[in-house]
Amino acid sequence: MGRWQPGAQERLQQAALELFAEQGFEQTSVAGIAERAGVTERTFFRHYADKREVLFAGQAEFQQPFLDAIVAAPASTSPLDLVTAALEAACTAFEQRRTREQARARQVVIDAHPGLRERELLKLAALSDAMAGALNGRGVAPLPARLAAELAVNVFVAAFGLWLGAGEHRDLVALQRLALEQLRAVAQGSH
Amino acid sequence: MGRWQPGAQERLQQAALELFAEQGFEQTSVAGIAERAGVTERTFFRHYADKREVLFAGQAEFQQPFLDAIVAAPASTSPLDLVTAALEAACTAFEQRRTREQARARQVVIDAHPGLRERELLKLAALSDAMAGALNGRGVAPLPARLAAELAVNVFVAAFGLWLGAGEHRDLVALQRLALEQLRAVAQGSH
Repeated sequence: MGRWQPGAQERLQQAALELFAEQGFEQTSVAGIAERAGVTERTFFRHYADKREVLFAGQAEFQQPFLDAIVAAPASTSPLDLVTAALEAACTAFEQRRTREQARARQVVIDAHPGLRERELLKLAALSDAMAGALNGRGVAPLPARLAAELAVNVFVAAFGLWLGAGEHRDLVALQRLALEQLRAVAQGSH
Repeated sequence: MGRWQPGAQERLQQAALELFAEQGFEQTSVAGIAERAGVTERTFFRHYADKREVLFAGQAEFQQPFLDAIVAAPASTSPLDLVTAALEAACTAFEQRRTREQARARQVVIDAHPGLRERELLKLAALSDAMAGALNGRGVAPLPARLAAELAVNVFVAAFGLWLGAGEHRDLVALQRLALEQLRAVAQGSH
């Protein structure tokens, strides 16, 4: 169990991750998830459309810190500074909401199923679209806005992959700084 | 019809794109595609598993120029130079294989269906994975290899989006150079 006394939605997430790990994604039923979480199937469907969506709940919560940071940045901030602020804020928020163990358990399930990986990529594409829109709103032209948003997603995904690695103890914010620095070095041709 | 006398596979692709545009993706059947292409359904299934895969055929052909360029580059080339070579080669190859009109017709169908967009994202993720592997093979460490590969995909996608734009006449190679230059400017904080 997590660090707080969770409600039905959190209990369902925890139960689903446990069962996906124990039995595999395909073999796990909604009925089984509801039972493990101590709720009815009806309660399950009040929170999620199907068992796949349990893994992708909270898209808005995930995106919001990226977008808020872009909106809140001082005037005449460069696109790089805008996405840097977005990454700092989002990585900080992410670590407050999820433990590394929860994220690892989720990733193992996703990596094992191409259909889940497609869904994860769509989630990241939606984040990129939303960030490009927010950058546009800050006066960044469409092409650099699109490129800067993708750069931020690229850095987030790379840092997240490192963060999940066995034996990794650095926090997500530190790894994001490392990935951003390395991406900038690659782009400068100086790596 | 294209610039050459196409075989069954190319005729099926052309027929599918026409029917998806005329009737919509959902309303188009394999039987209808085969009929329009002047082949039997059996021939269709010899080439494609289902109507979705007609849109995603040629993944290996698509990836190969990116990977070949990375393998063929001179020794001690930087990751940036490796992905620049990959982008130049792949954009040149792409324009030789597909007309802008074919690519536009395909994109309209994909953009209209989240399931097709997921599949497209998986194709791009596979390209990124393959390029990261090729960069690793050239001695680039895992993190910069991953970041450089994603940077290349980011540039390709941005350039491709511009290339498909209404009234756009610059070629894909020129647009790729523009996108790469702008991404480097963003990464330098100088945009």
